[in-house]
Amino acid sequence: MIPRYSRPEMVAIWSPETRFRIWFEIEAHACDAQAELGVIPRANAEAVWRAKDVPFDVARIDEIEAVTKHDVIAFLTHLGEIIGQDEARFVHQGMTSSDVLDTCLNVQLTRATDLLLKGLDRVCDALKARAFEHRMTPRIGRSHGIHAEPTTLGLTLARFYAEMDRNRVRLRRAREEIATGAISGAVGTFANIDPYVEDHVCRMMGLTPEPVSTQVIPRDRHAMFFATLGVIASSIENVAIEIRHMQRTEVLEAEEYFSPGQKGSSAMPHKRNPVLTENLTGLARLVRSAVTPAMENVALWHERDISHSSVERAIAPDATVTLDFALHRLAGVIEKLVVYPENMLANMNRFRGLVMSQRVLLALTQAGVSREDAYRLVQRNAMKVWEHGADFKAELLADPEVTAALPPSEIEEKFDLGYHLKHVDTIFDRVFGQT
Amino acid sequence: MIPRYSRPEMVAIWSPETRFRIWFEIEAHACDAQAELGVIPRANAEAVWRAKDVPFDVARIDEIEAVTKHDVIAFLTHLGEIIGQDEARFVHQGMTSSDVLDTCLNVQLTRATDLLLKGLDRVCDALKARAFEHRMTPRIGRSHGIHAEPTTLGLTLARFYAEMDRNRVRLRRAREEIATGAISGAVGTFANIDPYVEDHVCRMMGLTPEPVSTQVIPRDRHAMFFATLGVIASSIENVAIEIRHMQRTEVLEAEEYFSPGQKGSSAMPHKRNPVLTENLTGLARLVRSAVTPAMENVALWHERDISHSSVERAIAPDATVTLDFALHRLAGVIEKLVVYPENMLANMNRFRGLVMSQRVLLALTQAGVSREDAYRLVQRNAMKVWEHGADFKAELLADPEVTAALPPSEIEEKFDLGYHLKHVDTIFDRVFGQT
Amino acid sequence: MIPRYSRPEMVAIWSPETRFRIWFEIEAHACDAQAELGVIPRANAEAVWRAKDVPFDVARIDEIEAVTKHDVIAFLTHLGEIIGQDEARFVHQGMTSSDVLDTCLNVQLTRATDLLLKGLDRVCDALKARAFEHRMTPRIGRSHGIHAEPTTLGLTLARFYAEMDRNRVRLRRAREEIATGAISGAVGTFANIDPYVEDHVCRMMGLTPEPVSTQVIPRDRHAMFFATLGVIASSIENVAIEIRHMQRTEVLEAEEYFSPGQKGSSAMPHKRNPVLTENLTGLARLVRSAVTPAMENVALWHERDISHSSVERAIAPDATVTLDFALHRLAGVIEKLVVYPENMLANMNRFRGLVMSQRVLLALTQAGVSREDAYRLVQRNAMKVWEHGADFKAELLADPEVTAALPPSEIEEKFDLGYHLKHVDTIFDRVFGQT
Amino acid sequence: MIPRYSRPEMVAIWSPETRFRIWFEIEAHACDAQAELGVIPRANAEAVWRAKDVPFDVARIDEIEAVTKHDVIAFLTHLGEIIGQDEARFVHQGMTSSDVLDTCLNVQLTRATDLLLKGLDRVCDALKARAFEHRMTPRIGRSHGIHAEPTTLGLTLARFYAEMDRNRVRLRRAREEIATGAISGAVGTFANIDPYVEDHVCRMMGLTPEPVSTQVIPRDRHAMFFATLGVIASSIENVAIEIRHMQRTEVLEAEEYFSPGQKGSSAMPHKRNPVLTENLTGLARLVRSAVTPAMENVALWHERDISHSSVERAIAPDATVTLDFALHRLAGVIEKLVVYPENMLANMNRFRGLVMSQRVLLALTQAGVSREDAYRLVQRNAMKVWEHGADFKAELLADPEVTAALPPSEIEEKFDLGYHLKHVDTIFDRVFGQT
Repeated sequence: MIPRYSRPEMVAIWSPETRFRIWFEIEAHACDAQAELGVIPRANAEAVWRAKDVPFDVARIDEIEAVTKHDVIAFLTHLGEIIGQDEARFVHQGMTSSDVLDTCLNVQLTRATDLLLKGLDRVCDALKARAFEHRMTPRIGRSHGIHAEPTTLGLTLARFYAEMDRNRVRLRRAREEIATGAISGAVGTFANIDPYVEDHVCRMMGLTPEPVSTQVIPRDRHAMFFATLGVIASSIENVAIEIRHMQRTEVLEAEEYFSPGQKGSSAMPHKRNPVLTENLTGLARLVRSAVTPAMENVALWHERDISHSSVERAIAPDATVTLDFALHRLAGVIEKLVVYPENMLANMNRFRGLVMSQRVLLALTQAGVSREDAYRLVQRNAMKVWEHGADFKAELLADPEVTAALPPSEIEEKFDLGYHLKHVDTIFDRVFGQT
Repeated sequence: MIPRYSRPEMVAIWSPETRFRIWFEIEAHACDAQAELGVIPRANAEAVWRAKDVPFDVARIDEIEAVTKHDVIAFLTHLGEIIGQDEARFVHQGMTSSDVLDTCLNVQLTRATDLLLKGLDRVCDALKARAFEHRMTPRIGRSHGIHAEPTTLGLTLARFYAEMDRNRVRLRRAREEIATGAISGAVGTFANIDPYVEDHVCRMMGLTPEPVSTQVIPRDRHAMFFATLGVIASSIENVAIEIRHMQRTEVLEAEEYFSPGQKGSSAMPHKRNPVLTENLTGLARLVRSAVTPAMENVALWHERDISHSSVERAIAPDATVTLDFALHRLAGVIEKLVVYPENMLANMNRFRGLVMSQRVLLALTQAGVSREDAYRLVQRNAMKVWEHGADFKAELLADPEVTAALPPSEIEEKFDLGYHLKHVDTIFDRVFGQT
Repeated sequence: MIPRYSRPEMVAIWSPETRFRIWFEIEAHACDAQAELGVIPRANAEAVWRAKDVPFDVARIDEIEAVTKHDVIAFLTHLGEIIGQDEARFVHQGMTSSDVLDTCLNVQLTRATDLLLKGLDRVCDALKARAFEHRMTPRIGRSHGIHAEPTTLGLTLARFYAEMDRNRVRLRRAREEIATGAISGAVGTFANIDPYVEDHVCRMMGLTPEPVSTQVIPRDRHAMFFATLGVIASSIENVAIEIRHMQRTEVLEAEEYFSPGQKGSSAMPHKRNPVLTENLTGLARLVRSAVTPAMENVALWHERDISHSSVERAIAPDATVTLDFALHRLAGVIEKLVVYPENMLANMNRFRGLVMSQRVLLALTQAGVSREDAYRLVQRNAMKVWEHGADFKAELLADPEVTAALPPSEIEEKFDLGYHLKHVDTIFDRVFGQT
Repeated sequence: MIPRYSRPEMVAIWSPETRFRIWFEIEAHACDAQAELGVIPRANAEAVWRAKDVPFDVARIDEIEAVTKHDVIAFLTHLGEIIGQDEARFVHQGMTSSDVLDTCLNVQLTRATDLLLKGLDRVCDALKARAFEHRMTPRIGRSHGIHAEPTTLGLTLARFYAEMDRNRVRLRRAREEIATGAISGAVGTFANIDPYVEDHVCRMMGLTPEPVSTQVIPRDRHAMFFATLGVIASSIENVAIEIRHMQRTEVLEAEEYFSPGQKGSSAMPHKRNPVLTENLTGLARLVRSAVTPAMENVALWHERDISHSSVERAIAPDATVTLDFALHRLAGVIEKLVVYPENMLANMNRFRGLVMSQRVLLALTQAGVSREDAYRLVQRNAMKVWEHGADFKAELLADPEVTAALPPSEIEEKFDLGYHLKHVDTIFDRVFGQT
């Protein structure tokens, strides 16, 4: 997690303060359940809640941990200092550290996911708004980086919207994956604690009880979670690459927003670099790098080994903080993207009318010209455009062999942009619903 | 794809014969739709179906491709040879190669997924049967590879069942991801083909129309698909590692099945190697290796570049064939796993009764002995077990300071295995439903 | 390994025929050494060589393996069929299968590396030749995809040469990593075979004896080997991305070669797609995907588990065959790359003279104009270029405030391209040596 | 980078203080060279060194950066505050930010590598010492986790030494990869700065000039560097897995050190968990996760895009800090590893004498018994060991059919452990040199 690529809301989820607060809630709810079951005195359960609004002293807990070498014990000791060691003596009874740690991790991941969903919403909103704004802004479609046929900027943005909307579905599913808790003891048998405690704690923490756990919650869930983040990151890269291409000097169909006073890196006014989307490209690589270790974490030995722990200490905050930041950075880029429709037109017409050559070819064939002849006719006029910058339509209209087969009005018609855009609304309806 | 790690059903999905058959169906259905729309003559559409039961000549298609350098054109030429070039002249009208190729890929992936789901079913069935068989077979639970508290083999298997059952859900979702088709033209605008053709072809091929495509179906779908395969592979590794541990000479709680006549690698009768689960560990790495390139495939340039294609030519068959094989190998291992309950008991009792020391400690404390004294009492008797192989319960019963606090009957009770197994049924109900 | 992305020379290394031939050589050399040591009769060692020029019958070996379920035994049985079972009875004495298999794998990897080195040589030769050809072909240097300062195409190619030349050094080191053999027995103790046999076999096979092996050669060597292939693949991607950018319609500074008769995908003469370099981008992802599983293969259990084997059956041929093909495809692309120097100039001058604005700014400052004033002067003239397509130098020469500070001759001098190219030779000398 | 998995020496390399100090040195040396060339006044160059021993105020620099949005400019401004803005006015002349940033990164990576080399030295020293200590400590060799033939613990440790020693060679080569600097300007042409400045700065900073750079130093170097760290991490995992296996309750051939006062997690004296090596297993996954993004960083667009930057801000400190910590943790584990030779013997003799069955089989064959009969004789005696816990040698000596073929003294000889250990010294000489 790198401060400059972080938003405070997400960082807060991973702070020691938040972690201890969640531990507290898990322990306090567990005491309530234990009291309900008659396992511990109700008064002791109630006493725990005295710490509800008392901030925990992280430095003090660290100090205790330096002695006990055990983070949960250090926390419980500090809790005792707040509510009274005697009152605290039933806290954590029958539980193991992992019950607290794993349930807490999933609470944190769930909250992180809620923030990520908001980020995705913002990205989707921005894409939708700009897609409608540029629904009919014509632009050359490119395959292999080479001009192909006309499309619109709106379609490109609608496509990204659809992709990000799929990511919302995926992320909601990923949230389900990790929204489970476990209070099941050293090897998951509930030997020393009743399953009711797990039920109660999970309900209060917004989680579902893990049907069968060992000392830990199974890590295939987390693998699926981080894999989903990796896919979302790849989609961010996808949008970022598009914008970087649009901003290239030779293309210049759009630019990341530059504030009026902002200077590029030099005296060259064109030197506005797509540094935000380049940055997003790198951030995508970082988020993706969490996927493989998360998958390697699945095969723990027997009821548990602790190899996953150090991995998750890194990737859980790193991947969520980075992705959260990236989503908001991306949303900002899209919201403020400076679009140059006139450059789009100019690029499309760079080889004047040539993108329509395929339609002309087809029309000639349909008009009865042999495929070979049609190709020859188109080709010889196209070459004038390609080599001497002529206007394709003008050349065709001036070629008697062409006009012999196709009346001028039909030639004109082949250069109608509307032909290519007639289904834009159909596609918008599919993506955004009937409007 | 390695022949020895392949099942013919899955390999067949990726054969040239299957691919050409799917191409044929896409083209034939597209002709039907075009005829319905009045774009092409109905007779020509009907003529295409003459090839329905004619096997395509792969060698001939390769021969044509060697000249045309274009696989779809080579196929169409061969199709013309079968149904007549004149009848064939409206085939593919308005479509681009990617319409056929991408829709075909997703048909193949969908069929592959159906096979994978069957493999998962078999794994789940095997795990469920063996879980119930060993529901109450006691076994030491281990954390960090070290004995902790008792559990049962059935719980371990139920846990793997739950994990594989989650994988079924994930895989069904992954199937939805890639069960889409696109017949939308060179840049996805339907400029030269009506969306109705896409609707019809997708319906007939068991797919959903891609809401917005470019020249290709967006690759975030495939990234999510392969990521899901990576998670399933990691779960396979998880089960494999458990079995490899159980089969270690010193543990020997279970073995992969050896046929009566089968010899180990030498004169040593104990030399039965867990080669199937070791192999599964390696296969898991292979399947996982598809995840990152699939994610790198998402960010294509503009409406399409072809960088994803070579990647998918490799990972689509490799990952599905390997995972399919691995699922069936795993199912076979579980179905026939030779279990040694007596060795499980012997391992649990290796340090005679010591796994119960924690309960004794707790009981002493609850009986009013101070935590420090209780620890000392347990520790001094435990050390005799640990160092001299004594029996823990016998030592406790012979220690007057212990019996002063805890009556012998209570000490006896602490060694009751039933204490640890009392919630096994609860967990089974959660995993398999009320039975 | 995908046939269309394969060269027969490399595929041959991984054929069963080659594998059995290497096995034969290992066994025959081992017999020689055993005879020299007096462990087996010299006549038997000599008899083995009768099979030297006899082709092995792969189908027959497969047939035997179907019964014995053991590939090395099947091979030895077949060898016996050729040289006589009685003569063959000392073959393989004291050895284990892994001695043959692992030593063979490293012979194959070594030979594969030699082919890869030739591929790298061809790439380097092509880059060098084209670099010298275009040493002084001016081209705009770009950072962030935005025009920055002039450079030359030769410098770009020299940079790729230097990178590929580093890859030669890396690959030679990677070759050393895996050019070891082991004939050390079941757990690597030489209990049943003298280390001299290992020495002799390795010397004859062009390998070095592995100083300490277990049943297998340690896999950190192979991890390093495949990691190196991953780096080389990334360099291929680097060159490929550059060419794809150059070929974009709007840039068009170079194109992959199109044979005169070859057509693009349509009637559009500009529709020449950089499909080879796009393909290389995908192949790079494939080669890189071998790196992580190779690293996961390092931690085998104890003296050996067989989890690495299935991984290597896939990645060893796949990664070497794919990289070999990619190197030659890349070399071909570079050798035949069609370069458009005039388009490079046109692109550089797209904003007429603007790329020189920084030098003018600097000159104004050095002439005593305050930084703020200098910036204002440059900026106001630059804006005319940027917004109205004016010529920057002409504007400056017409701006009295500018000419008051800088005499026209000095302004002229700032637009001298030679200023930017004065160290091209220095850099060439560094990269290619004094010439 | 996670504080608990960090050593301060390595963290310090990545602190802002260190970074600014390196920037300062680069700028100061560059001024010296510029003064030597007569480009700037010598007095100004000398003035810069006034800041040599003045600590930079990181908070102040951050404050300036908040305004300028440019880290290098912020630093230069602060430098001016220290040495005088007028004296500072020639600092950085002709350079671009990347000249400073990239050269600095490589200085940091080089220093980090020097620390990593020390860590590897400590690991190697520990392995060597323990290898010699246990050169002849017998232990069963295992393949597939199953007992095979005897070996010694010393051989295992010598093997790890050889692997880590190879890692030293690799890391020294990786150091060469990234020990380059570049002061070559905006696109690497030295347009505004003489190559001599680069020469001088590199020499003073302990680097080599990058032969051909663009705005940045080529990233294939960094890819190779991080790949090498990934291999070393995999070797750490390899050793860690071995120790985790040795510490399993049922094996217990060694344990991570527990201080006398230290308690396991419970009242169970056997509950000493291999948490350090489990942690190392996880840390290895983390270090490895840097490899793929580092390779994805190679293909920058043209002369540079900034996508690599965010990746390196994370992986450069994370991977080096984590690996450094892991090496020292591993060294500590090995140095203090508690070895139980008696348990090794007990494990080896678990199936009394059975590990020698292969030698007996061979001896019977060599004594003229047919292969089938020999196998039957060995097998029937082995089964008594396997099934009833008999002593293999005793059974053989009591089997008249066996003793008819082999005199008792020869049978005795087959159980001589020395047979298996006779080449231990040979191997030690190979690994550690003649001693």
